[in-house]
Amino acid sequence: MWIYEKKLQYPVKIKNKDLKMAKYIITQFGGPDGELGAAIRYLSQRYTMPTRKSAALLTDIGTEELAHLEMINVMFYQLIKDATPQELERAGLGGQYVQHGHAVYPQDANGIPWTAAYLQSTSDPITDLHEDMAAEQKARATYENLINLTDDVDLIDALNFLRQREVIHYQRFGEALRDAYEYLDSKKIY
Amino acid sequence: MWIYEKKLQYPVKIKNKDLKMAKYIITQFGGPDGELGAAIRYLSQRYTMPTRKSAALLTDIGTEELAHLEMINVMFYQLIKDATPQELERAGLGGQYVQHGHAVYPQDANGIPWTAAYLQSTSDPITDLHEDMAAEQKARATYENLINLTDDVDLIDALNFLRQREVIHYQRFGEALRDAYEYLDSKKIY
Amino acid sequence: MWIYEKKLQYPVKIKNKDLKMAKYIITQFGGPDGELGAAIRYLSQRYTMPTRKSAALLTDIGTEELAHLEMINVMFYQLIKDATPQELERAGLGGQYVQHGHAVYPQDANGIPWTAAYLQSTSDPITDLHEDMAAEQKARATYENLINLTDDVDLIDALNFLRQREVIHYQRFGEALRDAYEYLDSKKIY
Amino acid sequence: MWIYEKKLQYPVKIKNKDLKMAKYIITQFGGPDGELGAAIRYLSQRYTMPTRKSAALLTDIGTEELAHLEMINVMFYQLIKDATPQELERAGLGGQYVQHGHAVYPQDANGIPWTAAYLQSTSDPITDLHEDMAAEQKARATYENLINLTDDVDLIDALNFLRQREVIHYQRFGEALRDAYEYLDSKKIY
Amino acid sequence: MWIYEKKLQYPVKIKNKDLKMAKYIITQFGGPDGELGAAIRYLSQRYTMPTRKSAALLTDIGTEELAHLEMINVMFYQLIKDATPQELERAGLGGQYVQHGHAVYPQDANGIPWTAAYLQSTSDPITDLHEDMAAEQKARATYENLINLTDDVDLIDALNFLRQREVIHYQRFGEALRDAYEYLDSKKIY
Amino acid sequence: MWIYEKKLQYPVKIKNKDLKMAKYIITQFGGPDGELGAAIRYLSQRYTMPTRKSAALLTDIGTEELAHLEMINVMFYQLIKDATPQELERAGLGGQYVQHGHAVYPQDANGIPWTAAYLQSTSDPITDLHEDMAAEQKARATYENLINLTDDVDLIDALNFLRQREVIHYQRFGEALRDAYEYLDSKKIY
Repeated sequence: MWIYEKKLQYPVKIKNKDLKMAKYIITQFGGPDGELGAAIRYLSQRYTMPTRKSAALLTDIGTEELAHLEMINVMFYQLIKDATPQELERAGLGGQYVQHGHAVYPQDANGIPWTAAYLQSTSDPITDLHEDMAAEQKARATYENLINLTDDVDLIDALNFLRQREVIHYQRFGEALRDAYEYLDSKKIY
Repeated sequence: MWIYEKKLQYPVKIKNKDLKMAKYIITQFGGPDGELGAAIRYLSQRYTMPTRKSAALLTDIGTEELAHLEMINVMFYQLIKDATPQELERAGLGGQYVQHGHAVYPQDANGIPWTAAYLQSTSDPITDLHEDMAAEQKARATYENLINLTDDVDLIDALNFLRQREVIHYQRFGEALRDAYEYLDSKKIY
Repeated sequence: MWIYEKKLQYPVKIKNKDLKMAKYIITQFGGPDGELGAAIRYLSQRYTMPTRKSAALLTDIGTEELAHLEMINVMFYQLIKDATPQELERAGLGGQYVQHGHAVYPQDANGIPWTAAYLQSTSDPITDLHEDMAAEQKARATYENLINLTDDVDLIDALNFLRQREVIHYQRFGEALRDAYEYLDSKKIY
Repeated sequence: MWIYEKKLQYPVKIKNKDLKMAKYIITQFGGPDGELGAAIRYLSQRYTMPTRKSAALLTDIGTEELAHLEMINVMFYQLIKDATPQELERAGLGGQYVQHGHAVYPQDANGIPWTAAYLQSTSDPITDLHEDMAAEQKARATYENLINLTDDVDLIDALNFLRQREVIHYQRFGEALRDAYEYLDSKKIY
Repeated sequence: MWIYEKKLQYPVKIKNKDLKMAKYIITQFGGPDGELGAAIRYLSQRYTMPTRKSAALLTDIGTEELAHLEMINVMFYQLIKDATPQELERAGLGGQYVQHGHAVYPQDANGIPWTAAYLQSTSDPITDLHEDMAAEQKARATYENLINLTDDVDLIDALNFLRQREVIHYQRFGEALRDAYEYLDSKKIY
Repeated sequence: MWIYEKKLQYPVKIKNKDLKMAKYIITQFGGPDGELGAAIRYLSQRYTMPTRKSAALLTDIGTEELAHLEMINVMFYQLIKDATPQELERAGLGGQYVQHGHAVYPQDANGIPWTAAYLQSTSDPITDLHEDMAAEQKARATYENLINLTDDVDLIDALNFLRQREVIHYQRFGEALRDAYEYLDSKKIY
């Protein structure tokens, strides 16, 4: 179970309303390579990991992704909370406004609701760790694309933090993969 | 952010392999009225609640639903972990086995991946609290259906705990709705 | 069965081409809280209602939602029927034009096709009536958002009529819920 | 708008509980080629038909498909209404029971919720009428498959009525297509 | 099996960056009536065609649709490959950039991932050939809508080629339908 | 473009009707880790690969996956082509029969239509190659699960061939990843 601690993993203090960035940032909540998918992917896969260490790693990273998801939610909400309906509409967030008002909703940048089809969990640890490494690369690439679209230093700072964490998760999954191969006394060629 | 505590909210100790129940119980992870949807619904809606108290309630219940999701995952995994491929196939879990092995995956009882289309977040607090009360009723009804399908006392015990929590959440959302109406000095008829 | 009567439940006479509003209004046909979902929800649920009166209510309201769906279709079509491809494109309806021309299609404001995942039908009357009350609140909130985006008096008039009907449906579902609790001699706490 | 008449287009009096057939028949409500899709397809397309006659045809047939949808709902409900949870489970309807109880829900035979992706509406009358003729053929083929799975005379009688209606609709859409070609003074080769 | 030949079926040489058209053209890869759906539809249906000739026709046209899919991919990539993130964003391709960078992805004009729900395969040859004729009409109408949105002669040339091929496929499916009726010694009325 | 060669990449000669295996094998056509997804993934990604060699590799493997998809289609069809409706129904393929008859359709083992949400294409070569390596691992694991469910030597032989190819593709993507890192003079840590 989880205990909520009323602070963000890393501070999010967006001073400028930037509706366009809100429209894109939400994909890291509910888009194909976002934090919701990451959290669910790792927390689902941990039951079939071969060692306590690898299961614990998935629990740790899955839990951290929940914190990232919260940061993305806060970013999105800070970016749009003072916008009028007309401003949202002009920024391409008319569909957001009509269907969700100013609310946070698990969707991608085009308004498509999140689907678990974005992730896989196979109970084959070698496979799942490859899935996880690929997921981290995809999240990294998405954060880089987001950073390329903005000049706002507060946004860039938070996005950069999240990007860095994905790089570290990628490395840790890489280590877990090496451990898994060893554990399986990997005579088979995968 | 969340801190992981390595225990379940309520103990899950399933002694008997029951593959049919596994097939159905998974819907309370990734089905239309399951705990994943509940957690995401409440954690998404909290940013636009009108008072700190109602936002805190959504955070609390959303966090608890994560714990429920974990209990469902553990139940599912305990129920199937020792099954052979042939046993899974005979129990109607052939699709599960081929596509996910023994892994936990956010799907409904028919294998359909979870979609955020199951939930809504509108930033209208009266509306969101109605959505939440309806969600708790739907979860309660699903738990009752699950209980009706089994005689296993361990399963029933855990399912009954979860069912009870939904009833309590429903009541707390009802109180929050009354608070919201008051707060809005609700002269409008909704 | 239904007999078609060649008139609208309430007149729709949009004089001004307003492509942006067309883009948003279509969500009340095929979006998450639109009239298609409402009609199908109520007409599906009526078979398992506990009394003739509650079944009749669902038939009545379900049938009325079909009339609302028709009004939305007419509104959408009146708003776009004289637009050139270029006008549609500039108004953010390029995807609409390329894939559906000037046609009415059951989609949300972002072009996402309607899915029955938006609704539930559980055969538990207490649950279904909660679902229905929540649905009416969601439809009301959506109509209010639509009204906030336009100054066109003809549009506002029709949208306001539809909004009002949702309020009345909500009240009638509330009465049906009280009846259902009484009927069930409701000693259980839901 | 539509007026509800409290009778079925054709009587449905299923005397024998047949859960397997229920599982399959529901696809003609919410499956890829079912009556919900048919009704929505025709009622959506009618605004862009070139002549009053063709628009009226779509209204007529769309309205009739609503009556068919109702017949399918009644069939499904009559087939399962007296089944215990255990009977539903043994017949492969465990997912139905857990998620929807004894309720009618717009899904296919595998429990997949209906999606508007099954239909198209293009505002090109030649195209839409081809879509409609294909839809009628697909519905006909599905009814034939259903009939091949049962020996129950009551079921076969109702399914046969519905199959016949699809054949007649197909013919009427064929006539409408010829009219449309004439109307368009069709020198173009489609 | 297929052998790749390193040339396009028809040359695609887009000289002008046109991001709006890229946004729309992609629907003919991954949209409801696009070439991916066409290829999969025909290649799936061929196993149950009644004659070698009709199976061969489906193989031929399915294979050609793969070539069309490739042309669409090349068009899309030529149109966007030199665009900056900011240019993509301003052209309504911000969601594309954030989630897919400059990559080709099987989506419609609104960014919705392709789904096999767009197509049907029934093993009833009369039905499948109707489905195919309707599919060709829908593809034709989409190409016409695309052509209506641009003045670029290079784009129009390639789109026109593709449109023409759909017309020819439609005619060939019409012939195959007549053959199928004959083969089935069609005493039944379809 | 592609030239069709009327032979399979590897012979498929299934002598025994095995409907259960058909139900599961179809997932390697239209399931989350099947050959359709593989082919579309690689053929989509090739435009943004950094070198001619890596683009050619994606073309080669994408083309080979089309051949695999064809083998899966043939396997499925050989397994079910002589089954009666009743046999299909008893084997859990009732939904298949009612909705698709004996036809091949791009679906998973639970009848869920294929969606492009299963794959990603990001234009970041490091990311895409990780996605591809993960995809090959997932396909490998699925083939192993399928092999575990059958004793039929003909089936095992064909499935084993396909499994082996995934292992080889995985290795080739690994080499391409090393090349990509070199090409990018990869001083950055991914």
